[in-house]
Amino acid sequence: MSENKILLTEKEMPRQWYNVMADMPNLPKPPLHPATQKPVGPEDLSAIFPMELIKQEVSTERWIDIPEEVQKIYRLWRPSPLCRARRLEKALDTPAKIFYKYEGVSPAGSHKLNTAVPQAYYNKKEGINRLTTETGAGQWGVALSQACNFFGMECRVFMVKVSYEQKPYRRSMMQIFGSSVVPSPSNETAAGRKVLAADPDSPGSLGIAISEAVEVAAQREDTNYALGSVLNHVILHQTVIGQEAKEQMAKAGEYPNIVIGCCGGGSNFAGTAFPFVYDKLVRGAKIRLIAAEPSSCPTLTRGRFGYDFGDVAGLTPLLSMYTLGSEFMPPSIHAGGLRYHGDSPLVSQLLHDGIIEATALDQTSIFEGAIMFARSEGIVPAPESAHAIQCAINEALAAKEAGEARTILFTLSGHGLLDLPSYDKFMAGKLEDFPLPEDILAKSLQNLPKI
Amino acid sequence: MSENKILLTEKEMPRQWYNVMADMPNLPKPPLHPATQKPVGPEDLSAIFPMELIKQEVSTERWIDIPEEVQKIYRLWRPSPLCRARRLEKALDTPAKIFYKYEGVSPAGSHKLNTAVPQAYYNKKEGINRLTTETGAGQWGVALSQACNFFGMECRVFMVKVSYEQKPYRRSMMQIFGSSVVPSPSNETAAGRKVLAADPDSPGSLGIAISEAVEVAAQREDTNYALGSVLNHVILHQTVIGQEAKEQMAKAGEYPNIVIGCCGGGSNFAGTAFPFVYDKLVRGAKIRLIAAEPSSCPTLTRGRFGYDFGDVAGLTPLLSMYTLGSEFMPPSIHAGGLRYHGDSPLVSQLLHDGIIEATALDQTSIFEGAIMFARSEGIVPAPESAHAIQCAINEALAAKEAGEARTILFTLSGHGLLDLPSYDKFMAGKLEDFPLPEDILAKSLQNLPKI
Repeated sequence: MSENKILLTEKEMPRQWYNVMADMPNLPKPPLHPATQKPVGPEDLSAIFPMELIKQEVSTERWIDIPEEVQKIYRLWRPSPLCRARRLEKALDTPAKIFYKYEGVSPAGSHKLNTAVPQAYYNKKEGINRLTTETGAGQWGVALSQACNFFGMECRVFMVKVSYEQKPYRRSMMQIFGSSVVPSPSNETAAGRKVLAADPDSPGSLGIAISEAVEVAAQREDTNYALGSVLNHVILHQTVIGQEAKEQMAKAGEYPNIVIGCCGGGSNFAGTAFPFVYDKLVRGAKIRLIAAEPSSCPTLTRGRFGYDFGDVAGLTPLLSMYTLGSEFMPPSIHAGGLRYHGDSPLVSQLLHDGIIEATALDQTSIFEGAIMFARSEGIVPAPESAHAIQCAINEALAAKEAGEARTILFTLSGHGLLDLPSYDKFMAGKLEDFPLPEDILAKSLQNLPKI
Repeated sequence: MSENKILLTEKEMPRQWYNVMADMPNLPKPPLHPATQKPVGPEDLSAIFPMELIKQEVSTERWIDIPEEVQKIYRLWRPSPLCRARRLEKALDTPAKIFYKYEGVSPAGSHKLNTAVPQAYYNKKEGINRLTTETGAGQWGVALSQACNFFGMECRVFMVKVSYEQKPYRRSMMQIFGSSVVPSPSNETAAGRKVLAADPDSPGSLGIAISEAVEVAAQREDTNYALGSVLNHVILHQTVIGQEAKEQMAKAGEYPNIVIGCCGGGSNFAGTAFPFVYDKLVRGAKIRLIAAEPSSCPTLTRGRFGYDFGDVAGLTPLLSMYTLGSEFMPPSIHAGGLRYHGDSPLVSQLLHDGIIEATALDQTSIFEGAIMFARSEGIVPAPESAHAIQCAINEALAAKEAGEARTILFTLSGHGLLDLPSYDKFMAGKLEDFPLPEDILAKSLQNLPKI
């Protein structure tokens, strides 16, 4: 019998990231300055990002070398395993073969560490010893905390106050790695003080936390800012996932008909799918690439394609992307990492051009899939990752319906060991679905900037 | 540069468990019936254990086949990785080479699943569809829940009430895998009702929970009981750890001078060390084998070697082992899995015969080591596992002192992602050490049964 886990040695780890911008038929329109609406230049970004990441943001080189220092840290957990979900296949009684690439083996527990490490590295190399960031549920905050620790840098994380109080486990993780974690809104920034003056009991939001982190980074010479998704350089770093998966599928003597990733800001989906976009565009592979998002925040499936702000306050550059409107407030679903009104410009452009596809899933259905997966394969998935699982289950059942032995690959972006209270709620029958009402969507889209 | 992680393929996984009883110079004295003080026979155990495990308990065959069905489940996560802790070596500035075998990759998060799976399997094969057990901190309860789920069996876990309330994450894990979890003492058993009648607010103890689980198993034809450490068959199953580690060390071109495991009931230490005991006894290898235990519960380093009960109530067979006295109440340290008054008879006999050694460590020192390890290698360890880490750190510093490039191997028995509140307490300076006072030890040892 062939193996359940297809492993690569450290020597087989990719030495370069894949840059999809080399091969896209249409590049996304450039980011615009929020005040002037002119394309943003490197000088606009250099207050908060190191030059090497700014270069990666606009590069159209197909392959970009992974620095040896970054590879060294990657080797603490990479290459990650590719697993055949035989017990899940059996439970579904499907002719489909289901493979999953497991990123939860990272010490941060998710794929986020793949970009946190190079971001910390390039900053350190350019003399920056301190990073700020925001975090909601905490996966990104944990990843950046670990990455800064590996390079001996300070890290200050603005954590949405309600999560700070309700998710103490992820806060502990950040503190173990030496980060200082500040509940946001805080008194440390003008942005925070303004919110607190209006509402001393504000629970905070990702939008506010971003403003605070950016404000601190912009003010201090020795401090930069780091973002965990959406931007081109972030997605570039995540392509190690799909590159490894492709090599592992080849070792198993397989090639997928369908590739699936969960999608919030887009980095996990893109990291998984873009190396297969290369196959599709350059080598003519017939392959479906599916981004799985929550029906409560259906950016790709029901949003509009155009320019919008990346944050609530309208301080970030305008990005060309699918959006639900920057004022859209997603409901408090348990896949906190997928609650974003916009999406990666690269993912958005490829969807717009018909190269990838997207699907939206209800919260209760993804928890059903999560428990089925846990009981079959043993691993309790993060609620975000469970979107990819449920999408894979749906495709496996469609294959059964069609009587076709399709090969399905999805990425399990992280484990759910710090998300167990969400499972308690689901098992107690206390989770609701939040399909987005048509009128609320229409209203939110009315306020898109006119460009 | 050689690799950080030394991996085995599934085909290289051991096909047999190693039974140290084939090679020990002196076998432990037999378990005695608590009432008659006569050696216990298979018929005494058959009310709660399947015959195949009873046979393993007394077998002196050196190699015992791992059933194919068990191997199939093992392959969900095994072989587990062996890692070179290069960053830890550097942080310690030691000439020692430090390797760790990482059992936290199991979906249960610890080595406990290695024995939970065969225990569930043998019961199922003998027509048993329901297991009961007790759990304190919850690692064993999670492992048995997963194992029962894999074989479609019911599992009922009596969880010490104070842990049930304070460790909701591990309780959630058991429920995700379909177990019913009962806070102990409960009204379901005579033992539980008796305790509740005397003290309705009893926080429970492992001793009470064992009594409840055994009572239910003994009463019902379709139900057996499962134990997560101490017994010979449990330790047998754990030898996959040391066997794999030996093969992986050989792949790295190394052989350890020192092998370390944390030690409570003994299954993690024994599983790691016994395949090297074989080398020492049969092949004359020069090697130190160290069991690392808490100074607050120093069974091996300060206990007495002789017969004692396995539980507080004196209902289990008398075992020949090191013991602090069955009435000894260990303080509430955060390595809950190491709070046991006795120890495996096999480990005890080998210590008594000078083949292995033991050391005791303070709670605050093991958390210091845990954080140093996390910051170096990325992984946040379980507090139990941190005893092995701190012992390895001490040995690496001794090697530096001696100017010798010793090779150290330890097992990291599990991750600490569900133990983060303990880290919070340590970081807040709120953890104490509990060295065992001489007079309390003397008093506890006074009451040992006279045999």
